[in-house]
Amino acid sequence: MSKNKNNQPIWSTRIKKDSTNLYKKIGGSLSIDKRLFNEDIEASIVHVEMLFKQKIISFKIKNKIVWGLNRIKNEIVKKKFVYDEKLEDIHMNIEKRLFDIIGEEAGYIHTARSRNDQVITDFKIWLRKANNEIIKNLDMTINNIIKKANKNVETIMPGFTHLKNAQAVSFAHYLLAYVEMFTRDKKRFNSNLDSLNENPLGVAALTGTSFKIDRFYTTKKLKFKNPTKNSIDTVSDRDFVIDFLYSCSACAIHISRIAEEFIIWNSDAFKLISLNDKIVTGSSIMPQKKNPDPLEYLRGKTGIIFGNLFSMLTILKGLPAYLQTAKIVNFAEKNKKKLSELSIEEINRIEKKLTNDVLKVFDLKNSIRSKSSYGGTSFENIKKMIISYKKNKK
Amino acid sequence: MSKNKNNQPIWSTRIKKDSTNLYKKIGGSLSIDKRLFNEDIEASIVHVEMLFKQKIISFKIKNKIVWGLNRIKNEIVKKKFVYDEKLEDIHMNIEKRLFDIIGEEAGYIHTARSRNDQVITDFKIWLRKANNEIIKNLDMTINNIIKKANKNVETIMPGFTHLKNAQAVSFAHYLLAYVEMFTRDKKRFNSNLDSLNENPLGVAALTGTSFKIDRFYTTKKLKFKNPTKNSIDTVSDRDFVIDFLYSCSACAIHISRIAEEFIIWNSDAFKLISLNDKIVTGSSIMPQKKNPDPLEYLRGKTGIIFGNLFSMLTILKGLPAYLQTAKIVNFAEKNKKKLSELSIEEINRIEKKLTNDVLKVFDLKNSIRSKSSYGGTSFENIKKMIISYKKNKK
Amino acid sequence: MSKNKNNQPIWSTRIKKDSTNLYKKIGGSLSIDKRLFNEDIEASIVHVEMLFKQKIISFKIKNKIVWGLNRIKNEIVKKKFVYDEKLEDIHMNIEKRLFDIIGEEAGYIHTARSRNDQVITDFKIWLRKANNEIIKNLDMTINNIIKKANKNVETIMPGFTHLKNAQAVSFAHYLLAYVEMFTRDKKRFNSNLDSLNENPLGVAALTGTSFKIDRFYTTKKLKFKNPTKNSIDTVSDRDFVIDFLYSCSACAIHISRIAEEFIIWNSDAFKLISLNDKIVTGSSIMPQKKNPDPLEYLRGKTGIIFGNLFSMLTILKGLPAYLQTAKIVNFAEKNKKKLSELSIEEINRIEKKLTNDVLKVFDLKNSIRSKSSYGGTSFENIKKMIISYKKNKK
Amino acid sequence: MSKNKNNQPIWSTRIKKDSTNLYKKIGGSLSIDKRLFNEDIEASIVHVEMLFKQKIISFKIKNKIVWGLNRIKNEIVKKKFVYDEKLEDIHMNIEKRLFDIIGEEAGYIHTARSRNDQVITDFKIWLRKANNEIIKNLDMTINNIIKKANKNVETIMPGFTHLKNAQAVSFAHYLLAYVEMFTRDKKRFNSNLDSLNENPLGVAALTGTSFKIDRFYTTKKLKFKNPTKNSIDTVSDRDFVIDFLYSCSACAIHISRIAEEFIIWNSDAFKLISLNDKIVTGSSIMPQKKNPDPLEYLRGKTGIIFGNLFSMLTILKGLPAYLQTAKIVNFAEKNKKKLSELSIEEINRIEKKLTNDVLKVFDLKNSIRSKSSYGGTSFENIKKMIISYKKNKK
Repeated sequence: MSKNKNNQPIWSTRIKKDSTNLYKKIGGSLSIDKRLFNEDIEASIVHVEMLFKQKIISFKIKNKIVWGLNRIKNEIVKKKFVYDEKLEDIHMNIEKRLFDIIGEEAGYIHTARSRNDQVITDFKIWLRKANNEIIKNLDMTINNIIKKANKNVETIMPGFTHLKNAQAVSFAHYLLAYVEMFTRDKKRFNSNLDSLNENPLGVAALTGTSFKIDRFYTTKKLKFKNPTKNSIDTVSDRDFVIDFLYSCSACAIHISRIAEEFIIWNSDAFKLISLNDKIVTGSSIMPQKKNPDPLEYLRGKTGIIFGNLFSMLTILKGLPAYLQTAKIVNFAEKNKKKLSELSIEEINRIEKKLTNDVLKVFDLKNSIRSKSSYGGTSFENIKKMIISYKKNKK
Repeated sequence: MSKNKNNQPIWSTRIKKDSTNLYKKIGGSLSIDKRLFNEDIEASIVHVEMLFKQKIISFKIKNKIVWGLNRIKNEIVKKKFVYDEKLEDIHMNIEKRLFDIIGEEAGYIHTARSRNDQVITDFKIWLRKANNEIIKNLDMTINNIIKKANKNVETIMPGFTHLKNAQAVSFAHYLLAYVEMFTRDKKRFNSNLDSLNENPLGVAALTGTSFKIDRFYTTKKLKFKNPTKNSIDTVSDRDFVIDFLYSCSACAIHISRIAEEFIIWNSDAFKLISLNDKIVTGSSIMPQKKNPDPLEYLRGKTGIIFGNLFSMLTILKGLPAYLQTAKIVNFAEKNKKKLSELSIEEINRIEKKLTNDVLKVFDLKNSIRSKSSYGGTSFENIKKMIISYKKNKK
Repeated sequence: MSKNKNNQPIWSTRIKKDSTNLYKKIGGSLSIDKRLFNEDIEASIVHVEMLFKQKIISFKIKNKIVWGLNRIKNEIVKKKFVYDEKLEDIHMNIEKRLFDIIGEEAGYIHTARSRNDQVITDFKIWLRKANNEIIKNLDMTINNIIKKANKNVETIMPGFTHLKNAQAVSFAHYLLAYVEMFTRDKKRFNSNLDSLNENPLGVAALTGTSFKIDRFYTTKKLKFKNPTKNSIDTVSDRDFVIDFLYSCSACAIHISRIAEEFIIWNSDAFKLISLNDKIVTGSSIMPQKKNPDPLEYLRGKTGIIFGNLFSMLTILKGLPAYLQTAKIVNFAEKNKKKLSELSIEEINRIEKKLTNDVLKVFDLKNSIRSKSSYGGTSFENIKKMIISYKKNKK
Repeated sequence: MSKNKNNQPIWSTRIKKDSTNLYKKIGGSLSIDKRLFNEDIEASIVHVEMLFKQKIISFKIKNKIVWGLNRIKNEIVKKKFVYDEKLEDIHMNIEKRLFDIIGEEAGYIHTARSRNDQVITDFKIWLRKANNEIIKNLDMTINNIIKKANKNVETIMPGFTHLKNAQAVSFAHYLLAYVEMFTRDKKRFNSNLDSLNENPLGVAALTGTSFKIDRFYTTKKLKFKNPTKNSIDTVSDRDFVIDFLYSCSACAIHISRIAEEFIIWNSDAFKLISLNDKIVTGSSIMPQKKNPDPLEYLRGKTGIIFGNLFSMLTILKGLPAYLQTAKIVNFAEKNKKKLSELSIEEINRIEKKLTNDVLKVFDLKNSIRSKSSYGGTSFENIKKMIISYKKNKK
């Protein structure tokens, strides 16, 4: 088992053998988060490069890790990587493989980084990419609609309101209504970028870290715009997920609507438009019969998207960030001490990740003072942040 | 029955006597839209002032209508207004009363305006007000949190992550996490204003109008920023409603979370905080027992808000803007004519609202050309709009 | 307890003295639960009649209360009752009025009954009535469809599947498909009755009561079938609410579907059916134009119903029945005692509702033994229940 | 290309080459419906055995098909089957392979069966199995709880209501509350079986079939209880899907609740219970620290289940069974004929599946008369069904 420089094991299967089966069934996410492999490796490489730049790890160790991670990436891309379902998720799979390849020094990828900021960083990078692809697709769609509108300014069609009679309208006018809709959709996805461009890496488990990391360096290298500003908010924030799912839901309503209108207008009863063969499907039994199946599926997908939004809303509503509050309180009570009187040994029993570097942290205030990484809980950080909040009156 | 200058009846109960009961049960919205009375009267007054400015109605008629509407407003405010549930909604109630007060000329409030743009305008003004009040409340909350944080920079509390041990954090740091959350919420509500500040008034039923109205005048008077740009989009757009409900849902998650954390930290087991008597409720049986009921209720409201969002998404998903397409197509087919060959009499049978002013509209192209109000379907409008879309590459 | 540098408790609320208003806004339910007045009065009368039958209260007191409650019912029916919004809900309003009318003896309506079982009982009676009305309406609808089908066995119409061609079908066959659907709906509502017919009255706050009440008497008088079997389940169970909302949602899909099909088939393009004037609405402007507005509204209501179901699911998901667990544990710890060693005085400080009748309850075991009302937590009850569960293997 | 005995092509890729990519992306379901392979093969075998029994196909053909299908099953089980993603779903994959193995006679599996009843049958068998497994698990759970309760009749714990003080309760009483909840859940899943035990096979595309099939035979062999009674209802009914998803949602609330209570009671602050090592996960870093991760995941799953329910509700709400109504109406109108006057050639152009066996079907009435399979649209069937509905007054 790998140890870190404090002679503690670095990683371990958190799953006890006895519980493996039950846990695997309900807890494993490997089949889903597999697709994050690229983001996970990219962020780990940038992280160790920063650790080296900040003189937290050596040149040799940094190189070893980067070489190992690139090799793993290659294995995955070439489909030679063997996934181990017992290792819960993609992050554990990559870590275990790195340990197999380069040995104990693999553990250094967890210096000044926790599973919390690692996973959120990977997921944000991935979601930012998806979000940007959607923006690009909306742009293309909008441009295509404008071109089509340009050719149909004087094409006349009946326009209808819910309970009113028909009025003649220009087909271009109808099409440009969708430019308005997809432009609003694009605005939502663009707006999502504000959050998606804030870098979570470096907030560690919750409070920031006492290592002298450089969050602006990783921000630049991972193409974020700013580091996130508050470590507590960062580890619990999932707004960027529901914002994305909501943006998809609103857009899906518009797509579903144009799909439905095109299905009806393409039907033999209405014959207002004639769909291109590329989006209808015929059959050799009835070659003359052309069903707009892909449009039907577009309509159907909307329900799935709504469902995902509501799953996530329900999950967020139920998250108990507080549950374990009990533990430290209980620990203090049992020891008849106020929290602020806990000895470093006692704190160590609670917070096993404290490193030798913080042996000088002899009380809680010093512990907090030490969390001076950007966004961390150090008193100085907070004072600066309050001044900045007041100035921005944001 | 009132007639407009084209000698057509202006308003009427759309409800046949036989169906009154069934309809009232499932279709009436008076009990809910009552609260829009102020917005409805305000928008009607601005509308007729614009009609007068544009020389579409006379000074005398304008004055009569404005006087009548102000009197109705006064009656409602003083609770002397008698609502008639048979008249479906608040708009019909006000119209009917105006007719009682000033007679037939009440009908002129529908010149160059349809029920479609009227209702959407009222609702947008109302929602903009609600949206702005929420922004103000979020601002106050954020400022209060910052003040409280300022006094608690060196107050230490245990911080917890989902599956990790506790770490000491500054209470100010915890509080400032909520500044981040509520700031994101505020950003969403601010973002809603882009749509809420676009004026729907003047798109008429669907296509714009041939009257020479001035949408920029009503925009300014009703404190919108711009008129909406596409009449078809305007009458069917409800994005501003789901945007608002989603913003409320995301904000409710944060409120629910802080409420839950305060409930637990205030409990006898944790005793980390002590809630002010003003937000706990005791009872005369157990005066020493203080339940944080208001916080409990805040948690509970979240479900209601999610439900509203889901209702609206489902409703929008199912809207058939297209259903009546059938009618005009059928009419043309029965008469063995192409749509563009319909005579004005035939068009009139379909579109009863065509006025004497458009008698010169002898074919569909001219009809479309006549809809030259901003955002309307006239060919010139559309050409300008395409140029503008291309320029903005928005 | 942590203090900040000003030696003050770290958090106090910003809600000012007049918290009544805030509370009323978010906590009051009077406007909604008003309609339960009948059920509340009915259940209270049955309850005190049972108390008298069991010799728990005197003939005189019972009569006074019944007289007072009937007078209140009369006041409400005749719209002479003055609601006080400060009194949160309908139950408090009725209690307060009873106290005004008959004085202190009004308090006896709470003997052997808590707010918990009172509210659930009222709500179940009300929901059972709504559920039964729906069953009756479904029955009528099914019968009407069968009659209509009977007259249309040989009426031919085109039948359609999603992506297949049309086939000739009997209109009766189409109609009978809805008999199948509404019969499934009816089955769901009938199934709801199993839970709606279990009487919650008598489980008191949580554990049952030591008074010798007769839950079978109140069950019979309130037309339930059985008393509920487990007091803990009874006070937290809301399955009967989501079952009802789900049944409405499934039924709404069928209603929405037939409404949509009738709208389309009634349209000028299809003209397959001709809707009765009673469910279309015309206007004096366009008397020939008949919109099936009521059908449109039926379609729209489905979203509202889905939203209600989702609200309730979210609320139930978040309910913390456990939150106050902290209190008694804390109480015991502070007093260095195991729970079972608490003195009666100490228990009394926790459970203020213990009456003189239970002074003999000198330890927790006796306390539990005393809760021998049907469904209560007494050891004997539980042993019997386990035997019964095993026998029913249900 | 394969032909059936009526010299028509039997199967074909419904997807045009040009549209393959778009369609595959949004329309393919192979990755999901793969797991239905067993049900699909089982139902096909029973179907051809019935066809042979009814003398619709020969002994030789039946044997060939059964042999082919068993071979395919074997290939899939042994993971030697090569899936072709271009073939949309599992049903197409199996059909294509059967054609490769036994040649043109593979087409006979579609005699008197359409894709509609085939897919619904497979899915119902699969869902019935899942439903039954859940019932078995609930039974086991209930029994285990009763056993645990039996051992804890006199174990005392604090019981809590939402806003009331704690009261002593028997731990067995607390546990038995979950027996009540899971028994209600079991009742819902049992209730689902009524629909899941109705056999859809034999309703063909929509109207039943003119082949003399025996739906009671396939019902018995596939272990259903009855054939469905109305072919139109059968092809559009998805109630059994939402019933299942709702049952899961209600059950998930209870599971989530017990998981949450156990997490809290297991925490160091409360220490009311001590979870078995099998459901906690520790780590080699902190062996003493045991997180109830599996319980946490159980809580989290509830949101996913709610999301699935709402996806399906939204999808059902939007289904247009009606869309293609237009086609036949248009066909008739173009040909200036009433529907009932269409010639057999014209009908054939609409309904390509009419076989030589029904050449005697010279008008629509005869066509309907011919659909005499149980649940089909023949007049005789309908008359009998009306009598049966009336008798059952169901």
